[in-house]
Amino acid sequence: MLILGLDPGSTRVGYGLIKKEGGRLKFIKAGLLKITSTNKAERLVELEKSFSSLLRSVKPELASLEKLYFVKNWKTGLEVAQSRGILTLLITKNKIPLLEYTPLQIKQALTGYGLSDKKAVQKMVMKFLGIAKIQGGDDAADALAAAITAAYENLSLLK
Amino acid sequence: MLILGLDPGSTRVGYGLIKKEGGRLKFIKAGLLKITSTNKAERLVELEKSFSSLLRSVKPELASLEKLYFVKNWKTGLEVAQSRGILTLLITKNKIPLLEYTPLQIKQALTGYGLSDKKAVQKMVMKFLGIAKIQGGDDAADALAAAITAAYENLSLLK
Repeated sequence: MLILGLDPGSTRVGYGLIKKEGGRLKFIKAGLLKITSTNKAERLVELEKSFSSLLRSVKPELASLEKLYFVKNWKTGLEVAQSRGILTLLITKNKIPLLEYTPLQIKQALTGYGLSDKKAVQKMVMKFLGIAKIQGGDDAADALAAAITAAYENLSLLK
Repeated sequence: MLILGLDPGSTRVGYGLIKKEGGRLKFIKAGLLKITSTNKAERLVELEKSFSSLLRSVKPELASLEKLYFVKNWKTGLEVAQSRGILTLLITKNKIPLLEYTPLQIKQALTGYGLSDKKAVQKMVMKFLGIAKIQGGDDAADALAAAITAAYENLSLLK
């Protein structure tokens, strides 16, 4: 079962691909889709292109996305939500089951504590996957955390 | 110059099409795209289909969208923003110039006063377009108001 985790943003979308075999998780790859256009509407077109090509190349069987729960800045939140809409559209069009988790659920799943900091989550991501470094930085780490949460929380879907 | 105004929502997208000829505006049509799916991700797929077919049938030369500026409920706001992302994606992919206005700018353009109520705006929509009733209800009226704002505020783009 190939699981793709995503961390949506307006100019950076982190992704992390893991494989679940029995009870074990295997790291496949992680990275960042960088959106370079300065025009906000064009960014969505660029994202659609770049995410479509990611989906074609990795062919995930399950996708996991962090829920946008609270934003400090509504303008930024709006842009992230629009990007998220594009990701959701493409995932759903490709008939890939989509799971969504709040940041609290993800932290809880990885560290056992809903208010853990980024570092604790990243440490557990590396531990679960047996890797020493996360390529793609914070965004990819968050994406991998979402993928791991889906792997452990939704065993019934994974059969 | 055919101008399509839109009022994005997660289950209802109002649209209004007007034609600008010289200094005059002509009402072409207005209505509502109803999204019926109960699954939120599927709604985006349904919206993409239904909005693509609207674009193919009306072939607008300019699109106008109300900016999402403030939301009372972040959950609803998120869904509207995701729908808005799909509309923006399709408009931009189709190379249709897109203008965006705050509610204040639209009210200002239609009634001369940024804090006018819905009724005052609708009255002016009907007056500008010489129609006695707005098909498609409040959402279509808001869409027509966005289209009229674009027609009057961006003459340079309209040539």
